[in-house]
This record gives sequence, structure tokens and C-alpha cells, in this order.
Amino acid sequence: MNITIDFIVDYYQNIESYKVLSQVEPGYLKKLLLESAPYYPESIETILQDIQKYIIPGITHSVAAPRSGQGSPNYFAYFPSSGSTVGFLVEILSTGFNVVGFNWMSSPAATELECIVIYWLGEMLMLPKSFLFKGNGGGVLQGTACEAILCTLAAARDQMLNRYGSEKMEKLVVYGFDQTHSALQKAVQIAGCHTKNFRAIKTMKSNSFGLCPNSLRDVVHADVKAGLVPLFLCATVGTTSTNAIDPIGPLCEVAKDFNIWVHVDAAYAGSACICPEFRHFIDGIEGANSFTLNAHKWFLTTLDCCYLWVKDPSALIKSLSTNLEFLRNKATDSKLVMDYKHWQKTLSRRFRAMKLWLVLRSYGVANLRNFLRSLVKMAKLFEELLRNDNRFEVVAPRNFALVCFRKLLESIIGSGNVYMSSTMVDGAYIIWCAIGATLTEERHVIRAWKVIQEHANALLSKN
Amino acid sequence: MNITIDFIVDYYQNIESYKVLSQVEPGYLKKLLLESAPYYPESIETILQDIQKYIIPGITHSVAAPRSGQGSPNYFAYFPSSGSTVGFLVEILSTGFNVVGFNWMSSPAATELECIVIYWLGEMLMLPKSFLFKGNGGGVLQGTACEAILCTLAAARDQMLNRYGSEKMEKLVVYGFDQTHSALQKAVQIAGCHTKNFRAIKTMKSNSFGLCPNSLRDVVHADVKAGLVPLFLCATVGTTSTNAIDPIGPLCEVAKDFNIWVHVDAAYAGSACICPEFRHFIDGIEGANSFTLNAHKWFLTTLDCCYLWVKDPSALIKSLSTNLEFLRNKATDSKLVMDYKHWQKTLSRRFRAMKLWLVLRSYGVANLRNFLRSLVKMAKLFEELLRNDNRFEVVAPRNFALVCFRKLLESIIGSGNVYMSSTMVDGAYIIWCAIGATLTEERHVIRAWKVIQEHANALLSKN
Repeated sequence: MNITIDFIVDYYQNIESYKVLSQVEPGYLKKLLLESAPYYPESIETILQDIQKYIIPGITHSVAAPRSGQGSPNYFAYFPSSGSTVGFLVEILSTGFNVVGFNWMSSPAATELECIVIYWLGEMLMLPKSFLFKGNGGGVLQGTACEAILCTLAAARDQMLNRYGSEKMEKLVVYGFDQTHSALQKAVQIAGCHTKNFRAIKTMKSNSFGLCPNSLRDVVHADVKAGLVPLFLCATVGTTSTNAIDPIGPLCEVAKDFNIWVHVDAAYAGSACICPEFRHFIDGIEGANSFTLNAHKWFLTTLDCCYLWVKDPSALIKSLSTNLEFLRNKATDSKLVMDYKHWQKTLSRRFRAMKLWLVLRSYGVANLRNFLRSLVKMAKLFEELLRNDNRFEVVAPRNFALVCFRKLLESIIGSGNVYMSSTMVDGAYIIWCAIGATLTEERHVIRAWKVIQEHANALLSKN
Repeated sequence: MNITIDFIVDYYQNIESYKVLSQVEPGYLKKLLLESAPYYPESIETILQDIQKYIIPGITHSVAAPRSGQGSPNYFAYFPSSGSTVGFLVEILSTGFNVVGFNWMSSPAATELECIVIYWLGEMLMLPKSFLFKGNGGGVLQGTACEAILCTLAAARDQMLNRYGSEKMEKLVVYGFDQTHSALQKAVQIAGCHTKNFRAIKTMKSNSFGLCPNSLRDVVHADVKAGLVPLFLCATVGTTSTNAIDPIGPLCEVAKDFNIWVHVDAAYAGSACICPEFRHFIDGIEGANSFTLNAHKWFLTTLDCCYLWVKDPSALIKSLSTNLEFLRNKATDSKLVMDYKHWQKTLSRRFRAMKLWLVLRSYGVANLRNFLRSLVKMAKLFEELLRNDNRFEVVAPRNFALVCFRKLLESIIGSGNVYMSSTMVDGAYIIWCAIGATLTEERHVIRAWKVIQEHANALLSKN
């Protein structure tokens, strides 16, 4: 076992020497590995050598390092999955126990610890009581926000169809914005809602790319007039493209008038709301029906781990439960316990609560806040560097630790030394710098900025 | 980091001293832990002590041990999640890299290794070329078979609605049997198909609890006559209740006549089909549209890890893809690579291929077959012990490593020394002994048998 641990430790010690972005060509790996599975066993040593030679060059080193002080991220593309030493250790623990906690009885600690960490984080976020177990709401850990959106959409859909009849299926309308995560569209497709009844309402730069409640009202109005049935709104706190904030409170007001289920997707930015100074970004959440954040995005937890809170667990459970004899047992029949298999899509489930419990305890609320603040502070620094150079434009307001700016993308990505990504917003091509890898320090941000400037200089001198 | 590893090693060294089944009462954990998250950090040592004191007593020790020769399973309930030393080590590796491989570019090695291990296992299973990449089919690793059923159902549904118009949604019929896994019913619910159009066709003991193709034909006929549209059939190789085998070939013949998508769920038993002597259980698979097995059930891999093969990946991709600007990149646009995010429900995905690659290499085909054979052999032994004791009845034919028998369940479960579970089949209450935990040896099976006999003796002497 030690050889494997040492291998990972070495990886992190050397991580700054790797190109952040993999430089391999499509199909490279097939040429390097056997065509068929080996008939006889191979040693771990041999396999680790192959990982070093063949796999590591094909990995984008977006990770955060398990040894603090060491290596890591010149990675600023997409939202970094913010692992941590603790997140990694606890993955070892939760894998080691290999718990399959589909119902309470299959491992009571898994279900009970999950209720506890969900309550802890709900409290840290100052969620209204209606979302917490003690207020008849409740929460569950799922894989990713994609899964959470699908499950809540199915719950909303079934609630509506039970009320108005299943023949309304074709009439149901789902609302998002042009900046909403693709998970919503995918959920609409999987849930069998009509893709032609999916509205991606246009946002504008003038509105900081957040949704205007009046635009929503107009669109919903038109749908109702056309005989359609408004069903579901996905509002976002911290959109993927620009970290825009949809105004939760005012949007919920509109939704209430039309009896629309409001799901708030704070997959990335939700974690920051445990800092009192950022909590206002989810003001109005009491008007929503469900709320989600990905702990693996910005909460020091390895992929995958998503918090979902709902006001009405029974709606979720009605859509997702099946009752099978082979899973019946005294504990469930007693109604004293809850079985999380009815709160999610799959039956088997991993012991994700263990990861969060360790992160919460080993950091403590105080240090979790400090961690999040330090990343936001670095993003501010990067933003200032950009604003002081007139060859660049900051394209959207920086709310958290993402800075969107304009210029020179391909040449920056191509270098492999720093990795940023691009997006289209409001018809313009912009660059995306997301600061969030656990080990990123100011010096990495400043180095990234230097690389960008060098490219700008080189390009300008060519012209 | 070492303290965590040592902790897990100790756990396995002591595992035989724990009651297999947790003895805690509902709500036990809430009384033991803080009501809110701690404000200041706590040490890993403190947390590990709490895990020992509070969590381990609430875990069902169904795991397989990472140190062979040590500890473990007197666990025969449900299908054991067959972790292994290698499966555990590789979880460390795949977590350590913390790869988020949603598209090729985000980590080329993740996508390419996945294609390779899917091809390797496809070959080991002697899947027809039409399911393999080289025959225009292909495969993907998902979380569990539940997810795979949902994704294939959505693909089948959309293919059908595109052909016949979306107004047929209410008419679509999905077929399973009373022994089909609840995942099918859940998928029907989530995919928005009418639950009244979900047929759980009755199987009978006389038919070894497998589906009779004639029964299927009759039911489908009646549906067509009633103006409904047959859509999807889920056939099972190794049902959860009794390990029954639905006859794939003949069922596919019926399905073909009605243009029904056939999904073969071999979640548990599929692994065994890498042994030539068990391959016949999936004969006829060439007539199916999709095929799945859970590597975490019986392939030495930790939860979660499910293989899904499809004959027509484009059907899957059409239902599950969304095209978003922020994930565009040269590699994808070149069409030289595939992006697995279009093959599954979520966007982010873990590096599951790494787990399988290590299992396949470090065991080799030879030892994987030996492992599976040894468990089947132990189940045979247990079956013989039962058949030689006239107080017990073996209720269904034993095909793999599950033995279903009748009598005395509650008192056996309650003892906590061995853990078996129960199910209802054909109106009768039966006991379920699934042999599959990686470290189970003959002596554990014989001990389980002694416990069962002692209980039988005790009960009979009371009367």
C-alpha cells in the first residue's frame, strides 16, 4: 500500500514541473497499451511505472495537492475541483469502509452522519428553517448538481401532473437563462419534458448577465396565454460563464404568482455564502423550493459531492421511491429512520457524508471561511492587474473568484504553462480565470499574469 | 497521511471482531455529535478516534478487506460490494489525481483509458462486435446500473418519439418482470413515462423465476391492440431476488418483432460471464441494444463503477448531449475525440477507468476467473449443506454465488454474527445467502452454516 501512497506524494511534489494542460494527441494511449487485457497478473510496481509514463502525461493537472506547501495549480480553467489533504484522506476512509448506504439499515452511520452534515452546513449558510429537517424540509448528498436538478425537476413535474393530469406533460415549461448550466437542458431532456418548452431567456451585459425578473414575467405570461403550464425555474448564484447572480428574491416573487418550482443552483458559489459578507447573494432563498451546491467545487472535497436541500422532501420521495420487498426491514417499517435511496436516482450510494464531516471538522468554520476569502482576494488582485493594463478588458463584474476578461486566448492556452478556458457571452469571446485550486497562492496568480502579458507583448510586436 | 492509512489497516485487522450487522438504534449518532459544525479546526487524531467510537459501530461491515489474509466477511446479505486491495489502492490513485474528465481535452488519459478498459472487458465477455467501438457500438463507465437504465431508456424514448411524434409519450410501454430491479421502475418515473404503462410481468417458480418469452409476447400483443406503443424491455441476467436468468435470445426475438429496445441488466452476474463456462448465460446478447454490469458488485472494484455498452451510441448521445460554448475546444471540434459527458447524465465524471485498469492488470484475466469461480464453488458447498438438512429448502436454482433458501430469517439476522437478508418471491418469504465478499473463504461459509443450524436447533428444541 505504501508504494501507492508514495507515488501520489511524489506526483504532488513534482506537479509544478508538469505542463498544466496535457499535450498529447488524440488516440495517443491506444498505441501505448496492450490491445487486450493481460492474462496473467502484473505487479503494482509495473503498473505504477506505466501510470507515470503513459497516464500522467495525459492528465490535466487541475488538482489541488494533498501536501500543503507543495506544488500545484497554475490551473485557472473551468472551476477547479478543490480537493484537499483532508478531502483526500477521507476519500481513503470512505473507500476503505466501502459502505453502500442505500437505506438506514445497510449502515446507520452513513444515513445519520449525512443528516448531521447537511444540518451543519444548512446552519452555516443560514438557510431558512423550512429547508432544514427540523422545519420539515431536509437535504441529501448526491453526486453532482446535474443529478440534483434532474431529481428536483422530476419532483416538480410529478407534483404538477398529479394536480392537472398527465396529459399536460406536453405543456410543461421550464425556465432558465442563456447563462444557466447545461445541466438544466439535460435534465429537461432526460425528464421527458418538451425541449421546445425549454426557455433560455436572454441575459445582457447591461444587467451583469443576471436574469431580469421582468423578462421572466413577460415570458411566463406569454406561455400562460398560449395555454402552456409554467413548471420550473432554475436560478443561478454564480453562473458558469461569468459568475453572474440571478436575483433570487425577485425571481421567486414572479414564480410564486405562477406556482413555479424554483430551484437555486449555487453549485460553485454557494460555498462562499458561509462567509457572512457573501451571504446576501442567496437572500430570498426562503422563496425557493430547492437549493444546491457542489462541495467538490469549492468546499475542499474530492469529486463527487453535492448538497441538495428541499423544502418538501415528500415531493422528491414520491417521484423517486419504489418499494421493493428485498429492501424491507424492521427499521424502515418502523418509520423511525429515513432511507436515502428514495431521495436520489440510484439505489447504491457512497459514504459521501464522511468526506464532508472530516472537512468540516478538520478545517472548522473559521478556516473554511479564511480559505474562501483568500481565493476571492487573489481574484481581486488579478482583476486589478488586468484593469491596470489597457490591452485587456474585464468583461463581467467579479463576484467571487472568477475573472472574465477579453483577449489572446488561444496563444495563452496553447503554452501549457497556465491553463485558462474561454466562453462566449453576449456574442463576445472572453477568457476565464477561475481562482480556486486549493494550493494556488498569490505568486501563481502573478506568474499567470506575466505569461499573459508576455503573450500580449509578443503579439503586438509582430504587428 | 500515514495515520489514516494505519487506521484503515487496523480496521481490517479487527474486522472479524465486529458484529457484521450494526446494532445501533435509530437516532444514535445525533446524540453523540456536536449540534453545529465546530468553529475551530480539530486534529485528524481526534476525528479518527471519533470514527472508531461513533461511526464504526454504525457501519454494516459488508466490505472486502484491502489486506488479503485478514478479516472480513461473514457478510452474505444483498450482493456484497466486492472491493479489493487493488480496488482500494486505485481509488487512492484516482482520487489523488482528482481528474474531472467531462470531455477529452479536460484529461485525455481519462477518456482514452476508459475506451481501452471498455474494449478489454467487452472482449473478455466475447461481446459481439456490434457492441464494441470497432463495430460502431461503444461503451461508457457510469456510476451504477440504475444510471445506465435511465440513460438507455431516455435514448430509446427519444428515438421512438422522433419517429412517431411526441404526442405518443403517453402511449409508450416499458416491460420488465416482477423480478426486475427497482431501477427500471425508478427510471420509468424519472424519464416521465407513464407508470400505468409499466408492465411488471409475473414470473413463476416453475419457470425458475425467469421470464417466459410467450408471456412477453402476449402482453405486448395486448398493448399494441390497445393502441399503445411498446418501447423498452429490461431483461436480467442474475436477478436480485434469486439470480434468475431471463432467456436473452428468445426475448430479443419477441422484441424484434415489435421494434422494442432491449436492455440487458447483468449488474451482478455479468462479471461471471468472463469465465467460458458461464458465458452461455448471455447468449443471444447480439439481439439486444444495450448491456450493463456493475464492476463494483463482483469485479473487485469499489463503489461506484458500472459498465454500459450500447450498439448505437448516437441514440444515447442525441438524448444526453447539450452543446455549450464554454466547453468547446479544438479537440472536440476536430471530431477526432469523443466527449463522454454526452454519454451520461452528469457533466463532471470521476476517473473510474483507472480503477478497472488496475484491477484488470493486477489480477489478469486468469486470476479474475479464478476469483469468480472460487465464490461460485463456495456457494455450491453451501447449497449442498442446505440440501442435506431437511429443515431447509433451496427455493430457486443456484446459478452463480447466491443461494436462496427458506426458514428462520429474523433470528439469524438478529444475531449480528452473520448477515443475510430476505426477500419475497412468488408469495413466499425466503432467505438470501450471497457469497461474494472478496475475503470470504470456505471456513466463513461453514461457520455461517453452523450459526444457521444452531438457530434451527434452538427453535426446534423450544417447540
